[in-house]
Amino acid sequence: MSEELLFVGVDVGGQTIKAGVVTDTGRPLSSISVPTEAWKGQEHGLGQMAKAVREATRAAHLQLEQIAAIGIATPGTMDIPAGMILDPPNLKPWRNVPVRAYIEQEFGKPTAFQNDANAAAYGEYWLGAGQGVHSLVLFTLGTGIGCGIVVGGMIIEGEHSHGAEVGHIIIEMTQPRRCGCGGLGHLEAYASATALAQRANEALATGQPSSLQARIQDKGQLTPEDAGEIFQAASAGDALAQRLVEETAYYLAVGAVNMMHTIDPDMVVFGGGMTRAGPAFLERIRHHVRQLAFPVPAQKTQIVYAKLGNDAGFIGAAGCARMLYHKIAASK
Amino acid sequence: MSEELLFVGVDVGGQTIKAGVVTDTGRPLSSISVPTEAWKGQEHGLGQMAKAVREATRAAHLQLEQIAAIGIATPGTMDIPAGMILDPPNLKPWRNVPVRAYIEQEFGKPTAFQNDANAAAYGEYWLGAGQGVHSLVLFTLGTGIGCGIVVGGMIIEGEHSHGAEVGHIIIEMTQPRRCGCGGLGHLEAYASATALAQRANEALATGQPSSLQARIQDKGQLTPEDAGEIFQAASAGDALAQRLVEETAYYLAVGAVNMMHTIDPDMVVFGGGMTRAGPAFLERIRHHVRQLAFPVPAQKTQIVYAKLGNDAGFIGAAGCARMLYHKIAASK
Repeated sequence: MSEELLFVGVDVGGQTIKAGVVTDTGRPLSSISVPTEAWKGQEHGLGQMAKAVREATRAAHLQLEQIAAIGIATPGTMDIPAGMILDPPNLKPWRNVPVRAYIEQEFGKPTAFQNDANAAAYGEYWLGAGQGVHSLVLFTLGTGIGCGIVVGGMIIEGEHSHGAEVGHIIIEMTQPRRCGCGGLGHLEAYASATALAQRANEALATGQPSSLQARIQDKGQLTPEDAGEIFQAASAGDALAQRLVEETAYYLAVGAVNMMHTIDPDMVVFGGGMTRAGPAFLERIRHHVRQLAFPVPAQKTQIVYAKLGNDAGFIGAAGCARMLYHKIAASK
Repeated sequence: MSEELLFVGVDVGGQTIKAGVVTDTGRPLSSISVPTEAWKGQEHGLGQMAKAVREATRAAHLQLEQIAAIGIATPGTMDIPAGMILDPPNLKPWRNVPVRAYIEQEFGKPTAFQNDANAAAYGEYWLGAGQGVHSLVLFTLGTGIGCGIVVGGMIIEGEHSHGAEVGHIIIEMTQPRRCGCGGLGHLEAYASATALAQRANEALATGQPSSLQARIQDKGQLTPEDAGEIFQAASAGDALAQRLVEETAYYLAVGAVNMMHTIDPDMVVFGGGMTRAGPAFLERIRHHVRQLAFPVPAQKTQIVYAKLGNDAGFIGAAGCARMLYHKIAASK
């Protein structure tokens, strides 16, 4: 039996709930997942979160009594201080779900509640790419763009739980693309996997020659899941795919530079599915950052890929549980 | 004689050094200014800063022995942790000026050093528009756009002294205007008084009818100092001036919304010369913010004018001195 304090972190996603136990010194002891099954309703969903806590504990060969605190990360919209999910687009038909109160009551332990992208940023800060830095900004590149900001151990969660919604900063006014959220000219409308697929579809529809034309003959339209195909076509020398990838690197650099001129972090971290594009893509982002940023941050800010993959969320949630536990202990 | 702790704040500008004494509970006791005379060199400039400290103390009917700590705010570029101005465009021909070490040695007191826009934001947070809020973002609208960010009493100064350089975030990619810094598509290139004058000149050069045409017949081109004329022409019903003002409100709303989706502060504060345009202009900024921001921050974030005017910088610098003093006291 460990003498160390132990924390459970839970990361609630649209399809899957991931969870694991992490020690006070940052050693992960387990990693499990259970289906979210959001469509079965929020009562069921809360039960699945509790199940994830139990399974993560069991998988680490521990008893619940040995767990010091629990952290839960969920997608928004949310009220972080209230511990509630409000009206989550990725967890339909949930509404006004008192996550923290439920888990607190179920297990009788201090429970932290955090936005999933913020938790992932904290995970990378605590045990991932950002170990040892003072501050970082994480962009998670998937069908959307998630973001989390950590400065000196503090998560910038905002006064209305809208901190680090950097996928939705405006980077274009003249010919703004429509974002999935309905807004115009947002970073996410340019640089997400969804945006990459859409830009590809637009170019292919004009008949531009490309190896990707065969792909849309098969399936009609490229989707966010085809981002990998586009990166592969670019690597294989396809000129259209190369242009699309280069533009994506540029847009991500714009997002990075806007954070470098706002937060000025030690490090900008890119995570999520699109980072499977590999080191050449990261190098193109770095190239554009060096062109666009002020000289000192351009030279000194580390631009890197995330290290924790899909575990960042539950590790960060465990980190939030740990912060909460030590804050309570210090105030006693 | 006051029993309260007393702090001197100094705000070094391109033309003028402002300074004053502020008490521990936030009561300003004096406000003086001396010329910067930057062209006389940095040795002379350091002497003027010391003179400002002495004059501010004397104007409050105090002795230097009664001052607990000093805060100095200066324009960049700078190295905040090192206490140095590096290569300031507004203080030619200064270079690598060890401000903090000089003042510390001259007066033998703890000395804080901060960016002027950051200090102004802290001033508004401590004693101005932001009294009582947890976080705010200040935009100072002048020939350029300065910015400062305070979250829970912490100034976001960045890891390379480039925090809150929000005048230089990219908001346009397709037809980007050139910023005074050389960059493309920066907020400052759209929404500063310089940008307003330039947009006016462009429109007037195409022969668009406007009461402002008479003005450029007099002086050739509008300059940033003519921003007030443009606002007055708009108030008097000039259609071109109204369009220019409306666009400026929109651009400032884009800047505000980008911060609301990054920092999500309690309050966005606008200060500087352009706020003389009055409440109608502020209402237009608010209008566009409500259109562009996510519903919750759009509804809850306060969008206001600054309250401290040109005193914000030295008051904030005194606040930084106060923070430093109490930090040293707490660590003893």
